[in-house]
Amino acid sequence: MSERRWNPILGEWVITATHRQDRTFLPPRDFCPLCPTKPGGAPTEIARAGFDIAVFENRFPSLRRDPPAPAVAGTELMPVAPADGACEVVVYTPVHDGTLTDQPLERVERLIAVWAHRTLVLGARPEVAAVFCFENKGEVIGVTLHHPHGQIYGYSWLPSVLEREADTARAHNHRTGGCVWCDLLGEEIADGRRIVATTEDWVAVVPFFARWPYEVHLIPRRHVGWLHELTDAEIAGMARILRTQLLKYDALFDGSLPYIMAVHQRPTDGGDHDGYHLHVEFYPPNRTATKLKFLAGSETGAGAFINDTYAEETAARLRELAPHDPSDVIS
Amino acid sequence: MSERRWNPILGEWVITATHRQDRTFLPPRDFCPLCPTKPGGAPTEIARAGFDIAVFENRFPSLRRDPPAPAVAGTELMPVAPADGACEVVVYTPVHDGTLTDQPLERVERLIAVWAHRTLVLGARPEVAAVFCFENKGEVIGVTLHHPHGQIYGYSWLPSVLEREADTARAHNHRTGGCVWCDLLGEEIADGRRIVATTEDWVAVVPFFARWPYEVHLIPRRHVGWLHELTDAEIAGMARILRTQLLKYDALFDGSLPYIMAVHQRPTDGGDHDGYHLHVEFYPPNRTATKLKFLAGSETGAGAFINDTYAEETAARLRELAPHDPSDVIS
Repeated sequence: MSERRWNPILGEWVITATHRQDRTFLPPRDFCPLCPTKPGGAPTEIARAGFDIAVFENRFPSLRRDPPAPAVAGTELMPVAPADGACEVVVYTPVHDGTLTDQPLERVERLIAVWAHRTLVLGARPEVAAVFCFENKGEVIGVTLHHPHGQIYGYSWLPSVLEREADTARAHNHRTGGCVWCDLLGEEIADGRRIVATTEDWVAVVPFFARWPYEVHLIPRRHVGWLHELTDAEIAGMARILRTQLLKYDALFDGSLPYIMAVHQRPTDGGDHDGYHLHVEFYPPNRTATKLKFLAGSETGAGAFINDTYAEETAARLRELAPHDPSDVIS
Repeated sequence: MSERRWNPILGEWVITATHRQDRTFLPPRDFCPLCPTKPGGAPTEIARAGFDIAVFENRFPSLRRDPPAPAVAGTELMPVAPADGACEVVVYTPVHDGTLTDQPLERVERLIAVWAHRTLVLGARPEVAAVFCFENKGEVIGVTLHHPHGQIYGYSWLPSVLEREADTARAHNHRTGGCVWCDLLGEEIADGRRIVATTEDWVAVVPFFARWPYEVHLIPRRHVGWLHELTDAEIAGMARILRTQLLKYDALFDGSLPYIMAVHQRPTDGGDHDGYHLHVEFYPPNRTATKLKFLAGSETGAGAFINDTYAEETAARLRELAPHDPSDVIS
């Protein structure tokens, strides 16, 4: 049902997971599988009347513990491997309506604690090389369930983006003794034009090299690799800057902005990753209120991204947008 | 207005081209800029009453000859460079309605000759490292003009996908003395399950490692790097297999299938690319008639593609679909 196949041209694994074609697709509100099971109602994924934040294994996993043997034989040039790893669903709240933006600060803090805990648990599994917490938000991103939720993947190898980040971190660390994110964060702070928001411990920035018009990275000032290394104060700061960024996003075009949120953490494969620096990347697809940025020929076919905006201008726009909730205003 | 910025984390250039935000977006039929200018009508991009296939510089280019100096200063860690290169538009036909699928075989042959000619001309420019002919088809791919057309980019560096292909080709060639595409094509032909169509000179295959459900690669049997190296017979064969593939695609869900079509040719930077093998890659976003495959968190955020289908099954489905035009049936 699920396996990994090697692309010898691009040098990367592709997951095939055929049972997912039939997964639940935008069910009506009353049939939401992420709501708590109602007394006398149809069973949902969460068989209890209430919860705070719920984590469970994805019913349609791409990666799993003890996966079946591959259905197809590979070759030396194009090998195949079991799709081992983990796919978990994180339900942010028992309340069906709303988004992560609507959650109070305390819930965002607890979500970060959940991510940190799952990173610790999944990362301790010997076959898990990287733990990846993420959220796909909005139908244009391909979300199939509206209930506020995210996902956690435990990959048994380093997928290409994480691998390139880890390679860069290692090379930079060996060359300079430092961290490439610490260095670029220093430059971004010194320049200032692309900074969106800051706290004592975190910086939100549209990076110099943004691919998407409103791409934002959240970067801790201190060099840490994993969420579970953060202090309580840093977790509180992360919750504040994350929530502030979400409020800015929804204020941008006066509506719930779709995005991919990707939490990039140090790999858990035991390799040489001292130079890796925790950060969160947001890619909203909108280039205007109504127009989307597509990954078309140049991006997908050749690998050259075209950004129709200047990071300096989009950062200025995001910086000006006041959060809705005055308690979250960041000086 | 346009520049390249270096992403030191992923090790790649991102193009910023701010003037493109205002480019023509899905104009009404009567205002199509790719139709021939009508007598007494508003001027279009093509100021003549008729033409066969037209090529001209994109009015909203991301890359151009003698680009302006970058508007923003870079740093040693995050340098900036002029966006030199070329962006051309290829109008397949003066007739507004229809798609490439609707064009007769002779026109497809002439289109290939146009691609070959522009590759020769653009590739001879010293600043052009790679010539990339492609088509974005369908509004879900982000196309902004409906008139049948494609594009040609001349990059002044190797974008990441082309660079990874070139690196693989070189390493494989140094290790084996051969070509990685020749080797994988041999394996695909021997296996047979993923072959979609063949001619004497070309093979259409859903590769073992397909990322998209109906991804198809067209690969010439002979080891050539550029279109202009093809014999007349090989160009005729390429036109037949390309048109056959397009007919199969439109028959798949009984409608005009969106896709990205990417023609990958040997770089023109004068480097060590003897192992590079010309091929055409198609990525249709549909996983069913109504459902699309999205590049969401795992794909875009981590770099791990998930394909919900088996290449063996999608290839069988495409193989069975008879072309509409019996003259294009390939035995």
